Amino acid sequence: MNDQHDSLLIRALRGERTERRPVWMMRQAGRYLPEYRAVRAATTFLELCKTPDLAAEVTVQPVDLVGVDAAIIFSDILVVPEAMGMHLVVEEGKGGPRFPEPLRNPAAIGNLGRGVTGSLRFVFDAIAETKRRLAGRVPVIGFAGAPLTLAAYMVEGQGSKNFDTFKSFLFANPEATHRLFDALAAELIEYLKGQIDAGANMLQLFDTWAGVLPEAEYREFGLRHASTVLRAVREAAPDVPFLYFPKGVRSYDGFAGCGASGFGIDWQTSMTRAAAELPEEFALQGNLDPTILMTDPVTITERTHAMMALVPETRAYVANLGHGILPTVPVDNARAFIEAAKGYRPG
Amino acid sequence: MNDQHDSLLIRALRGERTERRPVWMMRQAGRYLPEYRAVRAATTFLELCKTPDLAAEVTVQPVDLVGVDAAIIFSDILVVPEAMGMHLVVEEGKGGPRFPEPLRNPAAIGNLGRGVTGSLRFVFDAIAETKRRLAGRVPVIGFAGAPLTLAAYMVEGQGSKNFDTFKSFLFANPEATHRLFDALAAELIEYLKGQIDAGANMLQLFDTWAGVLPEAEYREFGLRHASTVLRAVREAAPDVPFLYFPKGVRSYDGFAGCGASGFGIDWQTSMTRAAAELPEEFALQGNLDPTILMTDPVTITERTHAMMALVPETRAYVANLGHGILPTVPVDNARAFIEAAKGYRPG
Repeated sequence: MNDQHDSLLIRALRGERTERRPVWMMRQAGRYLPEYRAVRAATTFLELCKTPDLAAEVTVQPVDLVGVDAAIIFSDILVVPEAMGMHLVVEEGKGGPRFPEPLRNPAAIGNLGRGVTGSLRFVFDAIAETKRRLAGRVPVIGFAGAPLTLAAYMVEGQGSKNFDTFKSFLFANPEATHRLFDALAAELIEYLKGQIDAGANMLQLFDTWAGVLPEAEYREFGLRHASTVLRAVREAAPDVPFLYFPKGVRSYDGFAGCGASGFGIDWQTSMTRAAAELPEEFALQGNLDPTILMTDPVTITERTHAMMALVPETRAYVANLGHGILPTVPVDNARAFIEAAKGYRPG
Repeated sequence: MNDQHDSLLIRALRGERTERRPVWMMRQAGRYLPEYRAVRAATTFLELCKTPDLAAEVTVQPVDLVGVDAAIIFSDILVVPEAMGMHLVVEEGKGGPRFPEPLRNPAAIGNLGRGVTGSLRFVFDAIAETKRRLAGRVPVIGFAGAPLTLAAYMVEGQGSKNFDTFKSFLFANPEATHRLFDALAAELIEYLKGQIDAGANMLQLFDTWAGVLPEAEYREFGLRHASTVLRAVREAAPDVPFLYFPKGVRSYDGFAGCGASGFGIDWQTSMTRAAAELPEEFALQGNLDPTILMTDPVTITERTHAMMALVPETRAYVANLGHGILPTVPVDNARAFIEAAKGYRPG
């Protein structure tokens, strides 16, 4: 039994009518918080990820400081490829994380480490430490990057506008690409089960680069292997909600069987269309445009209420942004979003 | 009467059954061609745009060198804001064009130049010179950027991953944003009519950044003002096909009344879905993923034929890429795409 079975988040995700709708923010433990920047000033990004005490500290900050209804563990999706042997470099302010020796040769797929979950113990320890600090106040969310998104970074070597190198690799080597995604899926399943064992009450699979492939290839490569992960983990832990966030997809046709219990909706998609395209049994989460948090509390409140009004009252729903909070958002504006979501009542 | 009334492109766009389907490539007059690079080596990008003889020379190159069925005039969408008084800088290899003094203050909208078509004569002259050189061989395509896409550059100052500055401006100043888009639409209508007067046989309205806004705002700002342009120009010249290319939109719901005679479909959207969502009377154009041209002629031919097979035979259709050709594509691969499209016969 999920130890947060009676929490607002888990009840809402089960589709129960709740006194109000829960809310959290993607990247809520992050640079917009002065308290986060203070911790980061004394360490590196990867050291922060790998030091459970520090990771737990920044994970809990937004619960205390902005009042979110869940804590998402502070970590990075790229620790999985790193554990598989890819050299990972994160120099903040220098264009994001990168792999200086990207995977460009199909033969190199066989050299990737397998069964690496043991070397990701720091994440499990951070979850356990976060649980201790929260003492039951709110649920803890675990996460991972989907196979497509991880592979896109591993082959391209870094974030990219079009991921041309990755896509050329995929178009030229479809079988090798499937092998790579298979290998990633196998690691992700064990990694996510480990997060549940450590105490995660909900999971999210981030497919940030779902939109870099044409629809047909996204379904053949992205959705297929994401689905392997979603199904295996849900089978092992059916009472842990598992949301899939395929950022940038054009249509949810055919998503009903993918194994997720719900979907994160990105800011570009209208909630009305998402609610219509995804069958009633799937929870929805999202999707305020993060840029709206750059305006002012009055605008933020209006926009948040308008967004929430688009989701039918009977629908399992969690208010959130439609992508990560921007580092330049004033904390008062982040708080205004959380307060607006908490204060929303159907009109 | 359109002087290319009997050309393959214009007949296909009218919905007539043709002996084969026409094909061209977005950004076909560009850096992948050594002959283009030779011309560019002796001048700057903006000088090339503004020198009709040179612009006509590179416009005609892909007709001679890769065998496309239409010539699209070599120019840049940002010459319109430049003509309205924005200082435009293009330093190739330095991250694309930019406005070093971006429009950030709503009051500055009133200072933009109006009725500026006269200072864009170099484009009209380039079209006329291209027509002379082509001597009727293929039609000439004129184009402009849609109000949303131009405004995104003008406010942000340059290309951007998320256009956060532009979006913050829009969310905080909706009325001013409408005024800016109105001003742009008025200029674009005259500019595009001028291109027709100079001899353009087809037009395309590029809305490259349609995807940076949430669906509701895209419709309120982007689609609405693009529609003003499309309708006014089509009313003035009903026999000139006018395609709208809203890159990154999630759904074509409500596009039927926008005034376009057809739509460019981006590479991310499945042609099957586009053909289903857009009523039969609208022509479709696209949409091979440009990265496929980085593979090899066999793969390119297979993929091109597979794409073309997705469009019903009865549909007005023009084969194209789903975005501009990449500068690193080998010329033989570009030629393989054109040959594949020309050689396609329904199975």
